[in-house]
Amino acid sequence: MEKSLKCENIFNGNIIKVERHRVELQDGSESYREVVRHKGAVAVVPVFEDKVVLVKQFRFPVNEELLEIPAGKLEEGEDPYDCAIRELKEETGFVAQEIQKIGELYTSPGFSDEKIHIFLARVVPYGEPEPDFGEFIEKVELPFQDIVKLIISGKILDGKTVAGILLSEKYLSGGEEND
Amino acid sequence: MEKSLKCENIFNGNIIKVERHRVELQDGSESYREVVRHKGAVAVVPVFEDKVVLVKQFRFPVNEELLEIPAGKLEEGEDPYDCAIRELKEETGFVAQEIQKIGELYTSPGFSDEKIHIFLARVVPYGEPEPDFGEFIEKVELPFQDIVKLIISGKILDGKTVAGILLSEKYLSGGEEND
Repeated sequence: MEKSLKCENIFNGNIIKVERHRVELQDGSESYREVVRHKGAVAVVPVFEDKVVLVKQFRFPVNEELLEIPAGKLEEGEDPYDCAIRELKEETGFVAQEIQKIGELYTSPGFSDEKIHIFLARVVPYGEPEPDFGEFIEKVELPFQDIVKLIISGKILDGKTVAGILLSEKYLSGGEEND
Repeated sequence: MEKSLKCENIFNGNIIKVERHRVELQDGSESYREVVRHKGAVAVVPVFEDKVVLVKQFRFPVNEELLEIPAGKLEEGEDPYDCAIRELKEETGFVAQEIQKIGELYTSPGFSDEKIHIFLARVVPYGEPEPDFGEFIEKVELPFQDIVKLIISGKILDGKTVAGILLSEKYLSGGEEND
């Protein structure tokens, strides 16, 4: 347990808030913690027939185009299930026939409270993607095991995608996809 | 591709720097990107006999104690291998007999450039842990498959730990642990 003694608000952005806390540590000594607050996000592993629908997009912070599972930020008060269904449709044009939550992950708990809710979904094509302003997304459909190979060979660099795909594999290989 | 038109330096902390960029998007329109810069980190899946050595520690940003694989921040100019060996010894008191890199992950590429280098190591006990100032770490040794079960049941919430353990499983089950 660490107790905040004083919170300094550094930045109040659209996506993140940044705080600097003076904290009391377990042994009674004092230190500082830098914290990035984030409203949380969802990510979906969308399975269509024997393929997974991924998205490729340029990520400004890392200056690279990344191959990822569809994902997006929670809106204020939004239920993660609703967000998963909404983001899936917006980013890929696919809709979920079945959807189940398979995990929750803190992306970087050393400095951020961002939590991602991970879902596994059976999906079908429905319409055209409707990305948000400022999102330029290319849809990529790949067989599940090809994605696993891309992960092992280091071609997929997004943490939630690696965790989401390898976690989904446990559910799919366990036969739970037939529920 | 998105081009930075102007960078505003918001915060220059010990662990993170925060920037706000005005950017030109793919279609020529303009927007803003909030970016958390981080020096990068390493994480190690340390295998001792049939067990993995984990660490339990309180994480201030999420206000929870988390069970994680040992990890730490890269020092300026430090080689990730050296960092992995150093952090493993500091946090657990174990040393690596064999170590291999199994991946690189961006923890949250939507707003941060933090990259974690993931290693798999065969380790042996060597001495007492020597945590950094402000780190209070409890060592926990668990059988590999027990950790996989904790992941599936949602008891392990740290993203790098979920990705690192499930990725390691691919190497260990593939017989590559006998190299």
